[in-house]
This record gives sequence, C-alpha cells and structure tokens, in this order.
Amino acid sequence: MAQPASTLAAGSVGTVETQYLDLPEPPRLDCGRELRPVRVAYETYGTLSPRRDNVILVCHALSGDAHAAGFAKSPPEESTRDGFRAEDRDGVTGKGLGWWDGMIGPGKAFDTDRFFVVSTNLLGGCRGTTGPSSIDPATGTPYGPDFPVITVADMVRTERAFLDELGIERIAAVAGGSLGGMQAFEWAILYPDQVDAVVAIASTHALQPQGVAWNAIARDAIMRDPAWQGGRYYGTGRAPGAGMGVARMVGHITYLSAPALSDKFGRRLQFSDDIRYTLTEPEFEVESYLRHQADSFVRRFDANTYLYMSRALTYFDLGRQYGGGSLARALGGVRARTLLIAFSSDWLYPPASSHEIADALGALGKPVEFHVIEAPYGHDCFLLEEARQTPIIRRFLGERGLAEAGADG
Amino acid sequence: MAQPASTLAAGSVGTVETQYLDLPEPPRLDCGRELRPVRVAYETYGTLSPRRDNVILVCHALSGDAHAAGFAKSPPEESTRDGFRAEDRDGVTGKGLGWWDGMIGPGKAFDTDRFFVVSTNLLGGCRGTTGPSSIDPATGTPYGPDFPVITVADMVRTERAFLDELGIERIAAVAGGSLGGMQAFEWAILYPDQVDAVVAIASTHALQPQGVAWNAIARDAIMRDPAWQGGRYYGTGRAPGAGMGVARMVGHITYLSAPALSDKFGRRLQFSDDIRYTLTEPEFEVESYLRHQADSFVRRFDANTYLYMSRALTYFDLGRQYGGGSLARALGGVRARTLLIAFSSDWLYPPASSHEIADALGALGKPVEFHVIEAPYGHDCFLLEEARQTPIIRRFLGERGLAEAGADG
Repeated sequence: MAQPASTLAAGSVGTVETQYLDLPEPPRLDCGRELRPVRVAYETYGTLSPRRDNVILVCHALSGDAHAAGFAKSPPEESTRDGFRAEDRDGVTGKGLGWWDGMIGPGKAFDTDRFFVVSTNLLGGCRGTTGPSSIDPATGTPYGPDFPVITVADMVRTERAFLDELGIERIAAVAGGSLGGMQAFEWAILYPDQVDAVVAIASTHALQPQGVAWNAIARDAIMRDPAWQGGRYYGTGRAPGAGMGVARMVGHITYLSAPALSDKFGRRLQFSDDIRYTLTEPEFEVESYLRHQADSFVRRFDANTYLYMSRALTYFDLGRQYGGGSLARALGGVRARTLLIAFSSDWLYPPASSHEIADALGALGKPVEFHVIEAPYGHDCFLLEEARQTPIIRRFLGERGLAEAGADG
Repeated sequence: MAQPASTLAAGSVGTVETQYLDLPEPPRLDCGRELRPVRVAYETYGTLSPRRDNVILVCHALSGDAHAAGFAKSPPEESTRDGFRAEDRDGVTGKGLGWWDGMIGPGKAFDTDRFFVVSTNLLGGCRGTTGPSSIDPATGTPYGPDFPVITVADMVRTERAFLDELGIERIAAVAGGSLGGMQAFEWAILYPDQVDAVVAIASTHALQPQGVAWNAIARDAIMRDPAWQGGRYYGTGRAPGAGMGVARMVGHITYLSAPALSDKFGRRLQFSDDIRYTLTEPEFEVESYLRHQADSFVRRFDANTYLYMSRALTYFDLGRQYGGGSLARALGGVRARTLLIAFSSDWLYPPASSHEIADALGALGKPVEFHVIEAPYGHDCFLLEEARQTPIIRRFLGERGLAEAGADG
C-alpha cells in the first residue's frame, strides 16, 4: 500500500529527555483516599503555540511510559531502588525509541510541526510518576500494596492537574491506544469543555469478560509468586519475576493474533530438526520467544505497577461509571469530535466494542468517525500499523494549518 | 432442537469401578528410554461380543482419566502419596460421573447395548496408570522429572499392549476429543489393520502455534513455582499448586469462547453493586469462577502429569512424525473410516485443522466424514454438546445391529 507523501517525509523528534513535575495539589481519587505528593514524569514534542491551543495529550497503555517519541537521552528516573532495573529500557522498542515514535514527529500522525504533543507516565506507573514503587512519606519506604487502588479517572485527573501546571487549559486532542484510549474517553466525559477531539485506538468502553479473565490470570500469576510477598518485595532482594514473566507471556499472546503467530513462528523447532524430548527447555521457536519476552519485560517493569494498571483497566466501564449501566447516557455530555480506530484481528479489544461506541455517539448526534483497519497483528496493531493509521488521523486532525483549524473549533 | 428418540431413551452404565492391569512387557518409547513396570488403570462399559469385534476404545484428553462413564464406585487408586489428593474427584463433573458420561451408555453415542467401550488412563497419567507420580523401582521414590518424556505414540502403544492383555486384537472404533482425538489418528497410522473407524472430535493433526504458546505458558507457570522443586515435590509437603492454578486458569479460558464467557458472566460484580477498590480479592464473577476452577483442579491433578501431557500434545504432529512434513503422506496408510467433528467456536482446536485432515483424507480417496457443529462453548463443546454429536456418531457407527455392521467390515 502506497504511503502518503506526508508520511514518507516524516522525521524524528530527535533526542528527548524525560522531565518531572511535582503537583502542588494531589488529584482526587475515586477510592476516597489521599495520595501526596504526586510527581509526574513527562516528555513534550513540538512547540506550544502562543495561544496554547495546539496541545495533543498522548496517553500510554499498560506497560508504556512518558517516553513516547524520539530517542531517550537517559533512562527515566527510577522510582525505587531494586523493585526493577531500567537497564533494559530498550525492551520497549529495541532502539531506545519512544513507544509511539512512528506516530509522533514532523509530518507524522501527531505532527509536531503543528502540534505540541505531551506524554506523561500514568499515575501508578513505575517510570517516574508516583506509583506503588515510590516512597510513601508516611513510612519512608515504598508504598507497595498500601498504594491506593486507582482508576482510569484518577489517571485522567492527574493528567488534568499536570496540564494546569503547564498553563494548558484546553487540549486540541487526547489520543491513545488500549488503556490510553480509555483515558481519552474519560477526558471527554470528565472535561467536556476542555477537549476538542478524541482519538481512541484499539480501545473500548469496557473490557469484555474474556479480557477481564486474562487480566485476572496475569495478576494472579504475580500475586501467587511467593517473591511478591504481599506486594512488599522492595528492598528484599527478591521480586516476583517468575510470576511477572507468566503475566507478560499471557499478555503477549493476547496482544497478537493466532494467524500472526502462525506466520511468524509456525511450528518451527528451535534447536534442531527433531524434538529433543525435553520438559524444561524450549523446543519450539515460539516457546523461546515467549521466554525472551518475559525476561525482557521483568527487567524493565515493576510488578505492583502491573497489578494496579491491570486493575484500573478492568474496572473501567463508562456505562457503569457514568450512565447507570447505559453507555449512551454516559456519553450524553461529550462535546469532543471522536475518531475511533479498531483492527480486524484484535480479539482483546475487538472492533465490536468500538462499534458500540460509534453507534452510541452517532445516535446522540455527536460527531464520530470509525475505521476498522484490516490488519493481522491483533491488538499490537495500534503500535505497529503506523502507515495506515497516519492518513486517517492526519485527516481527522485537519490537514490545514493549525490556526485555521483552531478558528473552526 | 429436538433430540432423536435414541438419545432421549439413553441410560446410564451405572456404578463402575476402575480396574488395574500390569503390562507384562512395557511399550517401546519414542525417546528410546525404557519404562518398567507399566500399570494401566481402566474401565469398561457394555459386553464384549463372542467375536471380540465390538470394541470401542475411548481416549481421554489432558486432564481426564479412565472414569469416562457411570458413577465412580470409589476414587481411583492414587499413584503417590501427597503429590495431590483425590478428595475432589467430583471436580470433573460435579457428580462423580465419568467425563464423557453423556456420550457413553445404553442408547448413547457410544452405545453400550452394542459396543464394549474401553477407557484407560493415559501413560504418564496420575489416576492409576504409570506416570511421573508413580514409584520408580530404581529409587523407590516417585519418578518426578526422571519419568521419560512421552509422546502420543507412546500412549497409543501402551493402549495397544493393554488391549493385547484383554485379548482384543481389532477395535471397531477409537474415539476421543482433543488429545483423545490425536490418539485416534495415531492409532489409525500405527495400526492400520486393527482399527475399523476413527472418531476424532475437536482435535487436530498438529496444534497451531497459538496453542503451542498457551501450553508453554501453562507449563512455565508450573515450573516457575518454587514449590515445583525441579519436579521433585513428592513427599516434601509442598506442591506447585500456585503455578498449577495459573496453568488451569489459562487452559480454562482457552477451552471456552469469548461469547460464552460474556453470556455466562458478563461484567457482573461478585459481591456488591459497586467496585471495592481491591487488588487482591476477586471483584468480577469471572474472577471468582477462575479461582474456583484453579483450586478445584489443583486438588485433583498432579502437576508433573500436566507437564508431560502438555508436552506430548504439543509435540504431536502427524506431518512431521510420519510424512516428512506432509500430512497427506502421513495419512497415506490409513485404512479406517474417519469421522471428524469440530465446533465453530473452538479457537484452540479450530475447525480449519479438522478441515485440513478431511481434505487430505478425501484427496487420498479415504472414507471421511466431516461435520462442523455451530455451538458457542468453544473447545469444551466436545464435553458438552452431547445432543448434537450423538446422532452423527450413531449414524457413523451404524444404527444397525452390530453383527450386520461387523459383517460389512
């Protein structure tokens, strides 16, 4: 498929350093508990316009961080000492590149020649923003399981408070895939007058029951690891890497499609032309691949953050939260234009979920655009299928100059 | 859907006691090692005809046992002391009923008024047949990881040796679902002159790569549990229940379809009308269900047997084993009539795999019948969709009296 010229000409945002900001007032939490202080790790790409009206907030998914684009200047600040190590930061992309580098930059989907793109590490994260591996001022040790159970709304209120500190009131768009898309919807409902557009990719208004189950299994794999120690593993010299590895392997297979796995690995054996009659060693290439994915993830991610993120995204349910069970009622106050992109092979966040949102917004007379991209890589498409998402997103955000686009709003 | 009269009139085989037989000669193993002695746990239903030509061998799947039909008279003999407990034997069916009771009995799919149905616990099992929890005569302690890595062919050679002891040379049919269906194919290839018919349900000639991945994750979950102790947990007072639970949860979700999970549980909360902000406790009904499934399975099944069964079924690959990579070549010597049944919602053993077998057999001019049943319960359909499998299987096995059917053969 030919790429549009604008994509071909796309460039890099260059080398980027993660920054940190301490919120003067902590955000309100749904659970009713108080969390303070709250630090937010963030990166920005592009230039804020004098009218401060060209901001795109990019929201990451379960295992992401603030480093969405460009090359990392240095590893992000560690929240704690030995819960995990940052040495394998390249695990995200293999090149120190941001997790959505293909989508953010000059001439890219989120065009830094026009927009000021802001990316933060989520509340509860382990890459610089306050999370369970951060020090609890009440005890002088990491929160661990004493960290409050947070929601997607809590993440969004934290992002709102953070943008306040940057002096940004309105955002031209809030965009993300998966859990990132959930944040985009939540923004449109919590702050309808401050969001011009939503770009929600491979996302949903509520995870389907099978997705709830996969997440429960992943969390159980971590919590059943004796090294988890009830969540108080920091400083003990032991971390639940075994359980985290299993959680990651489960996640990894749910992010890919069965045909993609078949194309990539088939039933090829790893070491020889025949089986070796081994129980413990990997035998098929896909088995080795899974173990590698597990090991690499364990080195770069904190297990408690995984638990909190996973819990937040399974709780997320717009109908329950805002509509007394009705998605349509929940979306009634949305004012943003909405772009939904789903992928045909995504069985974790299937297109049907985006379809329900599109139908509900359409029935309410809200401006909504919905695309299903035929692509084989499952849920991971939102990170991989840049070439086909780019023209859709650029058109939706307006190919025109920003000042004109802003004048329409 | 109306059930045929024969199904409505179906009865029970009554109370059944598992029996045990020691093989005088151990079967040859693919790995080249020797295993002796080999005991086989088995049950039979119906009456062996004077000509010994009415035998149906039923083969179980990963977590089954010899108790395929009727009510268990007593729990099967334990292979070892504390690797697992049999107290929760009802975990299989909830009523002490055999795992395929709906399919085996007077007037049922495998009609005990006509056929002598034989069911054995597989080699490597933990329900009476020699397996990793059995005593290794060389050491006087359970084999554990010293048990040889076995294949589906090894299981089938054991079944062959066992039937020899019963004085049974030919079998009218070999039948099974999932791993049981793999054994049926293997029988037709290893003993083409001794098998009249194959009934392979929800099975495959080689597990697809995604299935290989799920099995690798399940095995890793067990082996990463420190209580696994390299497989030498017997007698230590600790068993890898945590990892086994995760393995079972993964398995359980792959056995069901996403729509079935949605229908059964939706996103219903377990304890209240709203979320409770808990990380460790189940919150959604599907989360509680999964934990219950895990706990129940851990009480009745041996972790090492799980590893060996899972390895055998991922190794299984007719094309690699018998065809130099070609399924058609592997099936070239088959003489049995073949009935294939697959289920539309089975994504672990998808209908496409059965379709490949049907096409290969058809192209070779072999008699084959292939049905895809539209049903929502995923891979578990082979255990649940009795009413719709029954008329297909009865017709395939011949509704006529056995003597006439045998006379055709």
